[in-house]
Amino acid sequence: MRTGDANGEALRRIQAAKATLVGMARARDVVPGLRDRLVLHAGPPLPWERMCGPMRGAVIGASLFEGWARTPEEAMRLAASGGIAFDACHHHRAVGPMAGIVTASMAVWIVREETSGGEAYATINMGQGKVLRMGAYDASVLERLAWMNRDLSPIVDAAVRRAGGLDVTRTIAEALGMGDEVHNRCKAATSLFVRALAPHVAAGRAGEVERALAFMGHSDSFFLNIAMAACKATLDAAHGIAGSTVVTAMARNGSDFGIRVSGAGDRWFTAPSPKVRGVYFPGYGPDDANPDIGDSAITETAGLGACALAAAPAIVQLVGGTPQLALDTTRDMYEITLAEHETYRIPALDFRGTPVGIDVRRVVETGITPVIDTGIAHREAGVGQIGAGLSAAPMECFIEAVAALASAPAGRP
Amino acid sequence: MRTGDANGEALRRIQAAKATLVGMARARDVVPGLRDRLVLHAGPPLPWERMCGPMRGAVIGASLFEGWARTPEEAMRLAASGGIAFDACHHHRAVGPMAGIVTASMAVWIVREETSGGEAYATINMGQGKVLRMGAYDASVLERLAWMNRDLSPIVDAAVRRAGGLDVTRTIAEALGMGDEVHNRCKAATSLFVRALAPHVAAGRAGEVERALAFMGHSDSFFLNIAMAACKATLDAAHGIAGSTVVTAMARNGSDFGIRVSGAGDRWFTAPSPKVRGVYFPGYGPDDANPDIGDSAITETAGLGACALAAAPAIVQLVGGTPQLALDTTRDMYEITLAEHETYRIPALDFRGTPVGIDVRRVVETGITPVIDTGIAHREAGVGQIGAGLSAAPMECFIEAVAALASAPAGRP
Repeated sequence: MRTGDANGEALRRIQAAKATLVGMARARDVVPGLRDRLVLHAGPPLPWERMCGPMRGAVIGASLFEGWARTPEEAMRLAASGGIAFDACHHHRAVGPMAGIVTASMAVWIVREETSGGEAYATINMGQGKVLRMGAYDASVLERLAWMNRDLSPIVDAAVRRAGGLDVTRTIAEALGMGDEVHNRCKAATSLFVRALAPHVAAGRAGEVERALAFMGHSDSFFLNIAMAACKATLDAAHGIAGSTVVTAMARNGSDFGIRVSGAGDRWFTAPSPKVRGVYFPGYGPDDANPDIGDSAITETAGLGACALAAAPAIVQLVGGTPQLALDTTRDMYEITLAEHETYRIPALDFRGTPVGIDVRRVVETGITPVIDTGIAHREAGVGQIGAGLSAAPMECFIEAVAALASAPAGRP
Repeated sequence: MRTGDANGEALRRIQAAKATLVGMARARDVVPGLRDRLVLHAGPPLPWERMCGPMRGAVIGASLFEGWARTPEEAMRLAASGGIAFDACHHHRAVGPMAGIVTASMAVWIVREETSGGEAYATINMGQGKVLRMGAYDASVLERLAWMNRDLSPIVDAAVRRAGGLDVTRTIAEALGMGDEVHNRCKAATSLFVRALAPHVAAGRAGEVERALAFMGHSDSFFLNIAMAACKATLDAAHGIAGSTVVTAMARNGSDFGIRVSGAGDRWFTAPSPKVRGVYFPGYGPDDANPDIGDSAITETAGLGACALAAAPAIVQLVGGTPQLALDTTRDMYEITLAEHETYRIPALDFRGTPVGIDVRRVVETGITPVIDTGIAHREAGVGQIGAGLSAAPMECFIEAVAALASAPAGRP
């Protein structure tokens, strides 16, 4: 297919996507290929030896949670000796913020893209503070992890199914009119989600309904993982179109930044993960920061996050800068994308659709790389989030992708 | 007191206000002077003979609800014969949207202004469609009214008290960062409210918890009445300062538009209620519209609603115009106000505080009257809302107020 046609088809699929949250399940029961002693992580694949501090910490936490090890030391020995296998979430229709760890016993959201029928998966967001995705694995983290996966997930699963599913695409569209960019700020989306689901949670009456509702509403980022799964399901539908130069995944493992392109199969184009420019919590600075990490850049890839920054002027209180920076960032992203989203619209830009369909050629031509609106993890395991800000995807990934597509048989422009 | 000092004092009290939702109670138990066979209504006082269709319909509905009459005809005869007394909500520390009817058996939100210790009251918002505030009184309205006041109010009261109260000021401030102007759009505030209260509602387990949560989340305007009570409590604290030219209430009874001014005691300055310029639901037009009605302009008086329109670009989908109109409207309101709100801020305007403290002198000097962002009721009872738009307060009220204050002993500038 000619590149223009291929990209048209990729965009058509993205625009037609309708993501529905259908329920929750144990990861081993739904995530393809997720066997025991396999750890899925954020970003492009990398071995234990190259993993950053927060990702190692999260692997340790997952090993303790799964019962593969009894102590952190035992978990590290196991990982170093090949007793644990690793793979990228993205290879298993899954996505995870920050370290992005998914293992077999964890509960995952099931988001179905109705037009393609494809599904994507993400774990429950743990909230703020000491959390697994930042590499924390102390007793409080393990207790919360056990409770989320044992008590919370069946309550939420029953509520979602009782509600007949939840329209994630519509919730995201509404949240864009409510000051979220649905990556670093999910305050409105989380509120809408709890509001929609609360009656069904309360109707269940089984188990710890009160704690469930409190937990769901406690952190503004609760909805993030659901949005990520919706973006993943959407972009997977647009992946694998020969000749297409549309980016279908951007992901970081804390060491490497990687992209995948629709017409380039399952190959990752990687470069060292950048630092995040942003605002640090008191007591922390750039020297404490881990390089950019997490699968959450799937939101930018789908036209949310930094692409929708103009919808979220209040986010600059978190990431720095002024509301003008939010407007400018979205405007820049129109330069490197092929379309305006037909459903995700920004009131402050006269309801213009968010920029969507990042074209690797446009990135190289303009010299503008995608911006990502993200949290900053401490470089050591378990300290947690130390700030938030904007990062820029490294240009090398896009140059490499353009070269690879140009030499591919289907890559004729 | 000199006018400058008096206005400074009025603004100091408005800025210092901290509104807390403390619970619910039967109106007769908390609303001062609310006896049997007394109907409180929106706007300045007026007799039955001068009431518009929606207000008459709401009086009929309240009479049936209270058991004062068994049929609409009986209720009308009772009202016409002096068997029902009428007074303005504002004379009883209460406010109500549209017809704004409050009677003794209705449950009311209790909002306390912590700095002054004063309280204000508002009934539960009934949602959209056939609702008492629009003058509907059929069986479905009466059933919902009975359920709200019998079943819902004790559940919500218990939940609010269990939560230790709810910070209304903070909720409003957050909602302004989420696309609400907290009058005609309370989508974010309602979502935040349900999210905060849901665990406490669920914990109660008593009665119809599921229906309660569903009802609270069903309509975006659920929070409006709570916000109105918060504004009323705030502005009551700033009322009665000799010499002050600050407006402390704007209210419409569907026939008259009235304002009260801090330094002018309990006097109303009235003029015919204006028409609302806006967007009509399919099948309706300006000829069907009732003149502007309701106490909800208390939100504009406190720096919300049209004063905060720039915070809510998506509102133009409801009221017409473009996001630029929203920005321009807020900017105009800075011309007639004395301060920028220290807590209620607009991200899109670089977090500038909303315009607050409408000065009757500035209105007359600039020729700009306050804009009100509001719903449009059908002129006949019971049809309900037929659109939404912006109205302009009539200049006569302000001219009259300036004249009265100039001739008052304390009114020296």
